[in-house]
Amino acid sequence: MLAERRLSIGIDLGGTSLRVGLFDSDFSRGISPLDSHSLRTRVEHGPEAVVSDMAGSIRRMLDAYHREHHYEVLVEGIGIGSPGPLNLEQGTLGHLPNFPGWDGFPLRGHLAEVTGSPVILECDANAAAVAEWKFGAGRLAQVDSLAMITLGTGVGSGLILNGRVWHGMVGMGGEVGHLCLNPLGPACGCGSRGCLEQYASANGLLRLAREQADGLNGSEALKELSNQTTGFTPLAVATLAEQGDASALCCFKELGSWLGLGLAGLINTLDLPLIIIGGGVASAWKLFAPTMFAGLREFSFVYRLGEPTQRQTLEKNRTFIRPAELGPAAGLLGAALLPVLSKTQLMVEAAT
Amino acid sequence: MLAERRLSIGIDLGGTSLRVGLFDSDFSRGISPLDSHSLRTRVEHGPEAVVSDMAGSIRRMLDAYHREHHYEVLVEGIGIGSPGPLNLEQGTLGHLPNFPGWDGFPLRGHLAEVTGSPVILECDANAAAVAEWKFGAGRLAQVDSLAMITLGTGVGSGLILNGRVWHGMVGMGGEVGHLCLNPLGPACGCGSRGCLEQYASANGLLRLAREQADGLNGSEALKELSNQTTGFTPLAVATLAEQGDASALCCFKELGSWLGLGLAGLINTLDLPLIIIGGGVASAWKLFAPTMFAGLREFSFVYRLGEPTQRQTLEKNRTFIRPAELGPAAGLLGAALLPVLSKTQLMVEAAT
Repeated sequence: MLAERRLSIGIDLGGTSLRVGLFDSDFSRGISPLDSHSLRTRVEHGPEAVVSDMAGSIRRMLDAYHREHHYEVLVEGIGIGSPGPLNLEQGTLGHLPNFPGWDGFPLRGHLAEVTGSPVILECDANAAAVAEWKFGAGRLAQVDSLAMITLGTGVGSGLILNGRVWHGMVGMGGEVGHLCLNPLGPACGCGSRGCLEQYASANGLLRLAREQADGLNGSEALKELSNQTTGFTPLAVATLAEQGDASALCCFKELGSWLGLGLAGLINTLDLPLIIIGGGVASAWKLFAPTMFAGLREFSFVYRLGEPTQRQTLEKNRTFIRPAELGPAAGLLGAALLPVLSKTQLMVEAAT
Repeated sequence: MLAERRLSIGIDLGGTSLRVGLFDSDFSRGISPLDSHSLRTRVEHGPEAVVSDMAGSIRRMLDAYHREHHYEVLVEGIGIGSPGPLNLEQGTLGHLPNFPGWDGFPLRGHLAEVTGSPVILECDANAAAVAEWKFGAGRLAQVDSLAMITLGTGVGSGLILNGRVWHGMVGMGGEVGHLCLNPLGPACGCGSRGCLEQYASANGLLRLAREQADGLNGSEALKELSNQTTGFTPLAVATLAEQGDASALCCFKELGSWLGLGLAGLINTLDLPLIIIGGGVASAWKLFAPTMFAGLREFSFVYRLGEPTQRQTLEKNRTFIRPAELGPAAGLLGAALLPVLSKTQLMVEAAT
């Protein structure tokens, strides 16, 4: 009789690439996938074709694993991290900007039918938060509540409250990227103005950099950079800042101030013990962290209450703000964690 | 043998008055107390004296009840709603502005010792939220998650998430009154600027009214009112607005816009199905509600997603924003509900 091996499958569905990973479901030998595939997401061929790609990948990985290791394989489940909005109750997609024609597609049911395995559908930001909580910046913190803010093209976020992913009423809980920081600020794609996303995302940073470059004190180097078409990236601005360009550094200082203001709102509302900052922009941590912490102190008395000097009053820990540790791998890992955690302490449920 | 009657005791501790109420613990015959006492809070005599007042009131009420009804009385527990900040884990008071010298007093333990009954200590705003949830504006909504915002001298708030009072890490969760709406706005007592409290509280309204009165378009009536010392109250401004004074109405319109912006942040963060607006200022609901809803729509795409026209996409209910129904009675009732609910579905716990 063959030895049995329990596996969990993660899927990270993006607008351009689709990643499928096979994991030991007890994660006892680390957090890297046993096997993984990365495919182009054939958005234009429709959702059925992409589900078929997912199922094909899973089948090939399981077959290869079985051939190589001769274990009896039991799939605990499949977790999918998908861009939102999602209808989590029904397991269907909402209107996803980068997936034209996919509205309402029953992704969870369809994949479960094709693969015969239980499927958990989750927003990608929440999947990443779960991974960072269990295996990344949160692994030593022993907390059951945290927020993860992802500073990417936009600003995403995932909330875990008392050990459960917080979905809110219609699965839109944790849209911290659209916290309004400045009602007279720049227009946001969500229809509002001055959202956190307008200041702390890659696009927000480029806007701040353009403003700096066009301003009276804009450095020549930043001006030159901002006139480039493909070269004008957050990474290039960060490199300039690290080389000592004051204008470029100023962009990150401004980003940090706004981010601190946004985090202050989150802490005043929820008094969380841990906030994890991820996404590409977060790699410039050293450039924006000082003003972020200054903003937090300025705008959140709840944060200040937790500072060491105040401990005599409340005798509790402070809120820790930490950079994410897993990078882009968090999405796939978090997706694979969902089926496992749903059987243990992590209850994935909607607010009623 | 005497019939047994289970009772619950609520205490509403305020800086000027102390209310103690005796309730049927199944609340089957309504939500009014069977008996209640209202005393002056002898803050200056220290916490032991006030605990002794509480215990004395409870004893007299129980004795009177027993004499009159001849029931065997079983006290399920005592709930106290107190101003914050509190250390809920230890059952002690933090630094309460209106209770000089009371810092660190072990209110929960002391009252339990003196009365021999189990005591639950809770922030007054959370106690009020519990009452409105179960017996007020939330009683027909069948929701397990909501926020209650109290527009009083300041702006208080209580959060209930998945059927539990949300305390956050150090019991400071739900400080929505200090959500920054305008980083360049007026200084707030919390050390920040432009907090919701600076716009949507009684004091905030009076500041808005003074600005209106001093402005170019300030009406004579509002100018006159704002120069009075004792007569210049939110109620007087509301009365003027109801009489058709455009300047006075403008104050409430502005208050509504800011409140809508604040609620938008709360909904974008938590996607709650219900927000209840209470406190004295909330009685001017008709004056500020139109701009509050306009602000909500403008600054929260999560709120807009729940609007009837969007239901096709997400097929869910909208967030309801409702005025509180219980008025100042909510604090005492909610306190009395705490011992009962803690034995059933309501888990009162801190985030870890």
